[in-house]
Amino acid sequence: MKASVLMQMRFDGFIGFPGGLIDPTDKTWEDGLNRELKEELNLNEKFYIDKSDYLFSSLNESRNIVLHFYAKKVTYEDFRAIELDSMNAEDFGSEVMGVIRPPLYQMPNGRGLSIFLSNEFAGNSLIQFLKSLLNLGLLSSTEILDAIKNTDKQ
Amino acid sequence: MKASVLMQMRFDGFIGFPGGLIDPTDKTWEDGLNRELKEELNLNEKFYIDKSDYLFSSLNESRNIVLHFYAKKVTYEDFRAIELDSMNAEDFGSEVMGVIRPPLYQMPNGRGLSIFLSNEFAGNSLIQFLKSLLNLGLLSSTEILDAIKNTDKQ
Repeated sequence: MKASVLMQMRFDGFIGFPGGLIDPTDKTWEDGLNRELKEELNLNEKFYIDKSDYLFSSLNESRNIVLHFYAKKVTYEDFRAIELDSMNAEDFGSEVMGVIRPPLYQMPNGRGLSIFLSNEFAGNSLIQFLKSLLNLGLLSSTEILDAIKNTDKQ
Repeated sequence: MKASVLMQMRFDGFIGFPGGLIDPTDKTWEDGLNRELKEELNLNEKFYIDKSDYLFSSLNESRNIVLHFYAKKVTYEDFRAIELDSMNAEDFGSEVMGVIRPPLYQMPNGRGLSIFLSNEFAGNSLIQFLKSLLNLGLLSSTEILDAIKNTDKQ
């Protein structure tokens, strides 16, 4: 079974990751993140994201905010359960218009990952997506480069 | 409650509608359509699409095929059930990487429908989407034109 990644179609027509801004009431970054994941994905507490799931940070210059990216590896069965539970999230149908699995493979004429990369992404999420694939070893440098080269080939 | 429309993230990274080609074993166009909807959405038989749901046809020149477009109006509760059932479709995770609701509204800076229209769409599905919105009266001509004009405004 190949790996899958969870992203979402957002209310604003962009593809992005679940997450959001930290509130004054959040005691830690992770508290804010898990609050957002509960709102957007109805994420079960057993998947609580903690400091050990931290991957990297990046600056969003246009909004002057720093984005902290976390990733949690789960079994395929748990991934399926998370997708299913997301349908009952508080924000489903308002902030979140659907959860999607990006194609993590390349097909002829740029279909698959290259086409996916040509979609519209919120803020830093396109580069976060690529960086996390490399960082987690889900795709190789060669596969990422091939996908980038083959955009707009269809 | 505003209307929602169901589209999907496809295996090839494009956004599109559920559907597919008619097989030699399909007795009618609608039989082929409903077979595909069972495979891709696990669509309950109570939502069987019949001739009365036909909307329009269009030519896909690059593939030299004629596409027949159908739309079925359901209650919001049934729409939710269809979304949920889709997670258990035979093709979910292979042909279908997620079901999504396109944003049918316009926000500042082109966010919402305009951004959504800037994504990558399979074959004729972008124009089928716009035409069906007009045809079904889900958006007005003015709303469609505004969304088109405001693409790439962010």
